[in-house]
Amino acid sequence: MSHCTKLSSHWKIIVWDEEFFQGRRHEFTAECRNVMEFGFETVRSMKVESGAWVGYEHAAYQGQQFVLERGQYPRWDSWSGSNSYHIERLTSFRPIACANHRECRMSMFERENFLGRKGELSDDYPSLQAMGWCNNEVGSFRIHSGAWVCYQYPGYRGYQFIMECDHHGGEYKHWREWGSHAQTFQIQSIRRIQQ
Amino acid sequence: MSHCTKLSSHWKIIVWDEEFFQGRRHEFTAECRNVMEFGFETVRSMKVESGAWVGYEHAAYQGQQFVLERGQYPRWDSWSGSNSYHIERLTSFRPIACANHRECRMSMFERENFLGRKGELSDDYPSLQAMGWCNNEVGSFRIHSGAWVCYQYPGYRGYQFIMECDHHGGEYKHWREWGSHAQTFQIQSIRRIQQ
Repeated sequence: MSHCTKLSSHWKIIVWDEEFFQGRRHEFTAECRNVMEFGFETVRSMKVESGAWVGYEHAAYQGQQFVLERGQYPRWDSWSGSNSYHIERLTSFRPIACANHRECRMSMFERENFLGRKGELSDDYPSLQAMGWCNNEVGSFRIHSGAWVCYQYPGYRGYQFIMECDHHGGEYKHWREWGSHAQTFQIQSIRRIQQ
Repeated sequence: MSHCTKLSSHWKIIVWDEEFFQGRRHEFTAECRNVMEFGFETVRSMKVESGAWVGYEHAAYQGQQFVLERGQYPRWDSWSGSNSYHIERLTSFRPIACANHRECRMSMFERENFLGRKGELSDDYPSLQAMGWCNNEVGSFRIHSGAWVCYQYPGYRGYQFIMECDHHGGEYKHWREWGSHAQTFQIQSIRRIQQ
């Protein structure tokens, strides 16, 4: 990612191969496609020192997604937040280049391919139903600016789906494009990602 | 709670004793101190139809706390969000009377009893460190208006602690006052609760 090298000072993540910041340690200032190439079996704890990142269950940015903002993540459950299946793997991660908390705009649509009822978002929504969205599903998303994380359940819980204006041209037409772990249209809370 | 009866139309939660909205069903428009009094062993799924609520692991509002905003919660993992220990119990719940997304103000302090460095919050913060808070702990809180949920980990993950301006006079001097499940000063993200 060109922005990563260009702005690498904006991003720093430290990972360990044991829980609670123990064992093998490595610092990254840009994306990592596969931690095994650095002698890690998996990542079991980490500290995000700057920038917003997304971590992935599998190598090459596949599997469950985890938004990683500045702070300490001592165990797998500190970034998972989803119990849907017990997951202790974090194998690849990358900076979220377009995260920009001040200017975030997206449209969500009742049905896939930008059809049906439309909602315009520019804030954080712990409950889409509380802001007037009729059901617990979203068909498709168009990200105009910034980066967002969409969640399966209210209150920013369950599966996480990172959506960025500079990926897929900001177009997420169908849940199959939300991420390799997406299985339904169910989305009940959405928030902006800040750098 | 006087406000509950006074404004009961503002609150409605439907609970079931089986997952995915199956089995015994009951509607509540005010607090419930113990679902067992309604023939429930525990609550295994629920829908929040209006208002913001807080659910508790044990009867009489004890144990782990779970903020419950409008939406559908088909299984325990949809409200837990904390894997710290696998919890399938939800035994009591009550409306969050003072939740007011438009006007929320709180002060957080580096040390207990409102001592040390001070931070003023009036927005949502998925990462306290990203907004300049030096470490991963908060010593004490003073809630001036509204209701807030504080989380152990960044990105609104881990243990949840609901803090309200009309409880404890809005004063949370020490982690022992955050909730019966609090064990440390560790807080890494904070957000407002909306009605």
